[in-house]
Amino acid sequence: MSAKIKAFGEVMMRLEVPNYLKLEQTRNLNVSYSGTGVNVLSALSRFGHQTSLITKLPANSVGDAAIANIRSLGISTDDIVRGGDYVGLYFLEKGFHVRSTKVTYSNRQESSFCTSTLEDFPIASILKNTNMIHFCGISLAISENIREMTIEIARQAKQLGITIIFDCNYRPKLWNNEYMIARQSYMEMVKLADICFMSKRDAQFLLGMEEDNEDSDLSKVEELLKIVADEYDIQTIACTIRKERENLIIQGFIYHDGATCLSKEYVYKTLDRIGAGDGFASGIIHGLIHHFPIDEMIEFSTAASVLAHTTYGDTPVCSAEEIWSLVHQDMVDIER
Amino acid sequence: MSAKIKAFGEVMMRLEVPNYLKLEQTRNLNVSYSGTGVNVLSALSRFGHQTSLITKLPANSVGDAAIANIRSLGISTDDIVRGGDYVGLYFLEKGFHVRSTKVTYSNRQESSFCTSTLEDFPIASILKNTNMIHFCGISLAISENIREMTIEIARQAKQLGITIIFDCNYRPKLWNNEYMIARQSYMEMVKLADICFMSKRDAQFLLGMEEDNEDSDLSKVEELLKIVADEYDIQTIACTIRKERENLIIQGFIYHDGATCLSKEYVYKTLDRIGAGDGFASGIIHGLIHHFPIDEMIEFSTAASVLAHTTYGDTPVCSAEEIWSLVHQDMVDIER
Amino acid sequence: MSAKIKAFGEVMMRLEVPNYLKLEQTRNLNVSYSGTGVNVLSALSRFGHQTSLITKLPANSVGDAAIANIRSLGISTDDIVRGGDYVGLYFLEKGFHVRSTKVTYSNRQESSFCTSTLEDFPIASILKNTNMIHFCGISLAISENIREMTIEIARQAKQLGITIIFDCNYRPKLWNNEYMIARQSYMEMVKLADICFMSKRDAQFLLGMEEDNEDSDLSKVEELLKIVADEYDIQTIACTIRKERENLIIQGFIYHDGATCLSKEYVYKTLDRIGAGDGFASGIIHGLIHHFPIDEMIEFSTAASVLAHTTYGDTPVCSAEEIWSLVHQDMVDIER
Amino acid sequence: MSAKIKAFGEVMMRLEVPNYLKLEQTRNLNVSYSGTGVNVLSALSRFGHQTSLITKLPANSVGDAAIANIRSLGISTDDIVRGGDYVGLYFLEKGFHVRSTKVTYSNRQESSFCTSTLEDFPIASILKNTNMIHFCGISLAISENIREMTIEIARQAKQLGITIIFDCNYRPKLWNNEYMIARQSYMEMVKLADICFMSKRDAQFLLGMEEDNEDSDLSKVEELLKIVADEYDIQTIACTIRKERENLIIQGFIYHDGATCLSKEYVYKTLDRIGAGDGFASGIIHGLIHHFPIDEMIEFSTAASVLAHTTYGDTPVCSAEEIWSLVHQDMVDIER
Amino acid sequence: MSAKIKAFGEVMMRLEVPNYLKLEQTRNLNVSYSGTGVNVLSALSRFGHQTSLITKLPANSVGDAAIANIRSLGISTDDIVRGGDYVGLYFLEKGFHVRSTKVTYSNRQESSFCTSTLEDFPIASILKNTNMIHFCGISLAISENIREMTIEIARQAKQLGITIIFDCNYRPKLWNNEYMIARQSYMEMVKLADICFMSKRDAQFLLGMEEDNEDSDLSKVEELLKIVADEYDIQTIACTIRKERENLIIQGFIYHDGATCLSKEYVYKTLDRIGAGDGFASGIIHGLIHHFPIDEMIEFSTAASVLAHTTYGDTPVCSAEEIWSLVHQDMVDIER
Amino acid sequence: MSAKIKAFGEVMMRLEVPNYLKLEQTRNLNVSYSGTGVNVLSALSRFGHQTSLITKLPANSVGDAAIANIRSLGISTDDIVRGGDYVGLYFLEKGFHVRSTKVTYSNRQESSFCTSTLEDFPIASILKNTNMIHFCGISLAISENIREMTIEIARQAKQLGITIIFDCNYRPKLWNNEYMIARQSYMEMVKLADICFMSKRDAQFLLGMEEDNEDSDLSKVEELLKIVADEYDIQTIACTIRKERENLIIQGFIYHDGATCLSKEYVYKTLDRIGAGDGFASGIIHGLIHHFPIDEMIEFSTAASVLAHTTYGDTPVCSAEEIWSLVHQDMVDIER
Repeated sequence: MSAKIKAFGEVMMRLEVPNYLKLEQTRNLNVSYSGTGVNVLSALSRFGHQTSLITKLPANSVGDAAIANIRSLGISTDDIVRGGDYVGLYFLEKGFHVRSTKVTYSNRQESSFCTSTLEDFPIASILKNTNMIHFCGISLAISENIREMTIEIARQAKQLGITIIFDCNYRPKLWNNEYMIARQSYMEMVKLADICFMSKRDAQFLLGMEEDNEDSDLSKVEELLKIVADEYDIQTIACTIRKERENLIIQGFIYHDGATCLSKEYVYKTLDRIGAGDGFASGIIHGLIHHFPIDEMIEFSTAASVLAHTTYGDTPVCSAEEIWSLVHQDMVDIER
Repeated sequence: MSAKIKAFGEVMMRLEVPNYLKLEQTRNLNVSYSGTGVNVLSALSRFGHQTSLITKLPANSVGDAAIANIRSLGISTDDIVRGGDYVGLYFLEKGFHVRSTKVTYSNRQESSFCTSTLEDFPIASILKNTNMIHFCGISLAISENIREMTIEIARQAKQLGITIIFDCNYRPKLWNNEYMIARQSYMEMVKLADICFMSKRDAQFLLGMEEDNEDSDLSKVEELLKIVADEYDIQTIACTIRKERENLIIQGFIYHDGATCLSKEYVYKTLDRIGAGDGFASGIIHGLIHHFPIDEMIEFSTAASVLAHTTYGDTPVCSAEEIWSLVHQDMVDIER
Repeated sequence: MSAKIKAFGEVMMRLEVPNYLKLEQTRNLNVSYSGTGVNVLSALSRFGHQTSLITKLPANSVGDAAIANIRSLGISTDDIVRGGDYVGLYFLEKGFHVRSTKVTYSNRQESSFCTSTLEDFPIASILKNTNMIHFCGISLAISENIREMTIEIARQAKQLGITIIFDCNYRPKLWNNEYMIARQSYMEMVKLADICFMSKRDAQFLLGMEEDNEDSDLSKVEELLKIVADEYDIQTIACTIRKERENLIIQGFIYHDGATCLSKEYVYKTLDRIGAGDGFASGIIHGLIHHFPIDEMIEFSTAASVLAHTTYGDTPVCSAEEIWSLVHQDMVDIER
Repeated sequence: MSAKIKAFGEVMMRLEVPNYLKLEQTRNLNVSYSGTGVNVLSALSRFGHQTSLITKLPANSVGDAAIANIRSLGISTDDIVRGGDYVGLYFLEKGFHVRSTKVTYSNRQESSFCTSTLEDFPIASILKNTNMIHFCGISLAISENIREMTIEIARQAKQLGITIIFDCNYRPKLWNNEYMIARQSYMEMVKLADICFMSKRDAQFLLGMEEDNEDSDLSKVEELLKIVADEYDIQTIACTIRKERENLIIQGFIYHDGATCLSKEYVYKTLDRIGAGDGFASGIIHGLIHHFPIDEMIEFSTAASVLAHTTYGDTPVCSAEEIWSLVHQDMVDIER
Repeated sequence: MSAKIKAFGEVMMRLEVPNYLKLEQTRNLNVSYSGTGVNVLSALSRFGHQTSLITKLPANSVGDAAIANIRSLGISTDDIVRGGDYVGLYFLEKGFHVRSTKVTYSNRQESSFCTSTLEDFPIASILKNTNMIHFCGISLAISENIREMTIEIARQAKQLGITIIFDCNYRPKLWNNEYMIARQSYMEMVKLADICFMSKRDAQFLLGMEEDNEDSDLSKVEELLKIVADEYDIQTIACTIRKERENLIIQGFIYHDGATCLSKEYVYKTLDRIGAGDGFASGIIHGLIHHFPIDEMIEFSTAASVLAHTTYGDTPVCSAEEIWSLVHQDMVDIER
Repeated sequence: MSAKIKAFGEVMMRLEVPNYLKLEQTRNLNVSYSGTGVNVLSALSRFGHQTSLITKLPANSVGDAAIANIRSLGISTDDIVRGGDYVGLYFLEKGFHVRSTKVTYSNRQESSFCTSTLEDFPIASILKNTNMIHFCGISLAISENIREMTIEIARQAKQLGITIIFDCNYRPKLWNNEYMIARQSYMEMVKLADICFMSKRDAQFLLGMEEDNEDSDLSKVEELLKIVADEYDIQTIACTIRKERENLIIQGFIYHDGATCLSKEYVYKTLDRIGAGDGFASGIIHGLIHHFPIDEMIEFSTAASVLAHTTYGDTPVCSAEEIWSLVHQDMVDIER
């Protein structure tokens, strides 16, 4: 069973400092191209689905390189519009043990995507023949026109009966003090959404509650996400829960059609932290398409997230077979 | 005390994907040349023995590169015959934490070694002035002619009073369904062998028993290997036992002249997994040449194996001094 | 004007020794994936055409990597069949000045492509909606079944009115002594072809003439290719002519609908020699689709070839704009 | 004799694609930090002068890295102000033979420097104890506030008796259609300047003449630059003249105190093209400080430019000794 | 509050084998330049102090490279004298798990620094305008003239009221059997010192006691260092204590003005072991300058040492902010 | 026909700055191990001879790495003595076009080889079973004991009837002002030599004549070398002559048994300049062993030298087949 899934979102260039160096210590950077949409679609195309990214990239060498990279991941680039001037980019300095990983953005406000308008995209034709469409909360924050476009495209898609996927990804820093605008636009998107990725923190924000920092309080997560599901009438809500910094443990949670389910706890180790949440999301989406039982769905997606920690780059690159092997604990030392 | 040791076996090119990437994520590969014979002889030459590899390599750039590499390890290449067309090769994608290491072979059936015949090698002259000769069970599986050559060379060596070393290395996958041929040829080699490296799984196969998966059941290992030693009249049998996946613990076992001995348990961490068994084998052989007491023999060889996990490449590169330091627990943080 | 163009042919892994080293001097290799079909389609997709490769690749990491690479070039991989065991591969040691570039093949006879059969490919469905199809003479040499498949697919395509492109690429070494079989199969393909890439040497072979070595004898080239065009009823024949080793000069030649045309002479310098002929071929095909006047066609394709010498890898990566700039001599030192 | 020289200008991050690859072919970039000011000061500090850069850089990892890099070149960073958000950056794809080098800018309009204002800099204190100050024409183009600041700082410096150096570097592309504003501001700067770097094209622009493309017409260059010197009352004007693309020949020209002088012609080869003009400028400035005779001045600076083509990076790194060796033609093959 | 701190000591070239390889396995080395003085000053300059290194380096490419590197760290090179022939250098083979890190020195006895004499340095002018000066015990061992110079410069500095910092760094190997000379010169330096870095082993040596190996016996450390402080009249003595090899735990200890204080225990993981002690020392010095309370001083400096384990190179590169984050345990996974 | 050839000389570590960078611009160095003896023997072992290096290397990681490298070249390391402290090393900054290549030595006076004595080597046993022995003039300069050892070993070898090969390699810089000692020892070695490599400059020095700088004056070379051959009774003298810096042309000259011969002129381009003379020497030695006619001998050795310019590293790595191809001008573009 293969679905047609699209994602609307920005492609960023990632400039990674190698070997746990600081930027000032290196004369070399590793370059790749990613984004929530790219990451989720890459995983889904490995699971056998047809995927296509809706974005805007400049008609220059940087845009060409981004497109070649996205295409290599198995994602169609037919819905990518060319124009504007820049690709947003960020520098990644990987941490080591107690030293934090550091992300430094270069300006993205003027990127081709962030300056794009609804007129750039032939929305009607893009939404034809599409089963699902994915949006990311970061799109709500980066500029007013992208915020409006996101909501407008989601509306049009909803009317066409396309399943709306929304990953909250609420990042307070990006919103400065525009709390009310943020909450307002999040509420709109969540109302439109059929499938929602939302952490306890996201839920508190959405419900106008103050954050606490006990991320691992399971019953609280369950309680909150149920309230959100009820209030906003969402079919599926899911998230991962990370516990204790020293012993790295992750657990997946899903609310689906009134039922809830927790995955096993997984110890995880991190080769590359960024994009692990997108691995989880892709698992849930795949499970929903295939009507997995709720427990298989959460096990599969949590294992997908654990494996996404063990692969290089923002973008998940594991196959469904590899993920099932982890679920069934039949990983071997060397596969030969 | 320095012995003259030869090994008959294939040299493979190892094409390793760097930095825990997947093959599709890289444009660079690390290249080296290895094989059970190469690995064991490399270690033995570091322990002060004279070693020489018996194999066939093509008379082209790839063969030249393999030879330069083998020579750099301190192994004589005088017994290497040139001819045929190819060097067998495999791709290595290193795993990370729960993600498995993946080995993908390119075709080796047509390699110079696999298509070689007894006529290619001046066996009589090769076996002159040789104290020990090493064979690997993989040679029995790769082609009919290599299987026959292996047994024939072992027979001739036996008649000349040369000590026969046989590392079972039974890999069911390589045999497809030819179980009977496999067992038959293994039985012949084990009968000829003076020193045998054999896991519980190997022993069960040899004795026609079904495998179970409790690899760490020590008493079972001891019992089985004793039966094999009796039945096949082998002087020395040894193996390593790996316990529990999470807490990586390894322990060495030896049966020698009727006595058995277990090493201390070692926690190990892995920089490069492949070839760790060959490090163990080289330790046992070195110990037998020097008539180490049985407990020193098993400690030395287990420590050799632990250290082989901590060095890059298939081929062990630690000195006897480094190994003894680990046995005596007088490793330091920084040696300067 | 955008055409739908497919190519039938093998994908090879290229393992390149970096920095003009010999294989024995390196511990690193650069890996890429190419082939005549890949190269020509890559260039054509940059010129705005829809391209798709017809081949077979194994369902393992190596096949996955090849597919990701081909996809990144803008070529559809929908017609690629998965199965078989191996990807053919070759080692490339780049020469420097008087030192020759050296290509060493590893065995390709057992590759997924070389062992594929007509049954592997849904030919009828593949040829639907196709304007042109490209074949390479090397396919005739590598195995009997591929030879037969090549001719059979060309026949079926011809019947469907698809334009047949055939690049002779005659390599005597690949044929051993099977001269008659070679000539026979070349004659069949040339008869089917609408567009043919053929050097003087190829023409002499085809016409059963002995080779001479004066490659640069222009009038001879013209004369011979006209005879071939007449005899085999081919619409378009083209080739590049390289002159004198020291002063590297290249010139393009085309015979088209009875007329002939020579390009300007270009001095060329070589960053990467392999694939320069495929750059030329892609230029001719693009010119024919767009009905360029014959002189523009040959200038464009010769410039494409000159530029293909200046880019890394077997696969041409220059845009039509860059090629036209060279034709019009308005290249600048730095474009900013 | 050592002077105190400052430069006001932007620091850019250069992201260079290695090995003559295109951006889409690489997963690695070489990173360095440069700019006209950085380049000229780096050379001057190697010639024994005290140099300091006046610019603004963000207070983040990228700014830290730029500062460490500038400091390593021997330039004081005491006059660098920290703040703002970004460092401007560009991608460099090096050409090969007829393939052009391509520079693709990412947005610099919002860089820390481009958004800086006069209030950011303690101008009075910066200009204390300064003999010379360098400005670049690019600063006039990048934003209105930088244009105004440049002129204002030059005015204040002039009043303090500091020697004003102005490198025209007129880039029509950066000005879009604001021809009148451009000319107006150039006129102001040239009037303030004591030392001016100006090509024939720059002079034509400044004098309101139409450009022709015969860059190598020596008498025209001489004639024009004399007119400019007269009209704008400039003590020293200098430039390099590049001749014919195939045989790469460069020649230096200087007008100084009414006299003119041409250097020898130098054949040059290019390892890294960018920054060669800054090498020339640094030679002239050094010559003026040391009161070199006019012919030594132009030979030294032309040789400095030729050598700047042979070193990696935008920034000249040759010593005065190396430059004199080239002037005196006593370079050796190997210096040991 | 910013102090003026200088250090007298050698700069070494570090030639590091990458990727945990042995030297014989690599064809590439990473090069950097360090030394106790360089390391401590680098950290202090990041904390906002003015630093300058007093050393001698050859007037050749190697000296130039060392200077560029030191300057990039924010250290003034104005007090570096040029002359002599060589830079001392060492090879670093990083260990992995139980395999030890190995340092192999190339000859340093003839380095520019080791053969320098008091006449090389304008001591009076160097010591002007200096608040603190740092010496390392290694300088006492490397040659007689450096030993005498070290003591002489310390004496002159003491007379000028400059705070004397002395890091014992006693390395028995460097002294061969010259125990009495060693102890004598250590005693002189310790008498001059205001701030002393001294392990239990250093203290035992200084007090003429035999070493024991129980490094972690806290009460013993405290007792011994108090005796030393009393006997030699030192204001501040500090050291780190490492516990148990398996569970890597580090704890800082300080004696200051009669009071003692222990830091929290920190688990540490090691990216690069060398220079971690210099990170600790820089923390204490910074704390003393700022009159931190004794507990903050020891927490800050121990955290600085823990972080120095997590960064590449001998030289600490973390900011005070990063260190305080670790002290306050508010490190995050990803900082963006 | 295969000869047994040994060489007495130093092994140096070469630390090469990659990509035409200056040392201060790099954080990476390429490491290899070479020396006149290593270079000549490497070439000879490729030509099928048995070779062995006589030297001393330290018993540490650096010595191990040097030995592994020498062994990989096909040279026996059985005559290498272990001991002493250091391996001599030099930094190589490759020039580009008019920028000179720069070699910077680190101290070699204290290397294991330079501090070795006659007692270190079992000379009698080493010289057994040896046909030829090679010495380099640099050994005369580096230390008094090496100078004496060189002459003594040559004397003993001469008495045993071993062919003495001496490469003058006179480097005035190494001798400071000890002109008389230099000339004296050179005269002794030349008297002992059967085969001598000697440039015009070497000959002038030896004959006590003043140098002129017209290196390319062919008749002068011929005249001088004949005088030397007569005066010192040498069977074979050979050298290469380089002409004009711009058009790089090389020509070989040989005097043998009274006859002289010049090779063709070869244009050469340089990938790696160092060791080209050793390529030439190996060709002459090979030709003498095989009794090539004088013209073939000089063509082969000159072509060997030309090819040695085109390969990476000090050490020649081309086969006799490749060299003959160049002699016969049947090099191809791509060999496949």
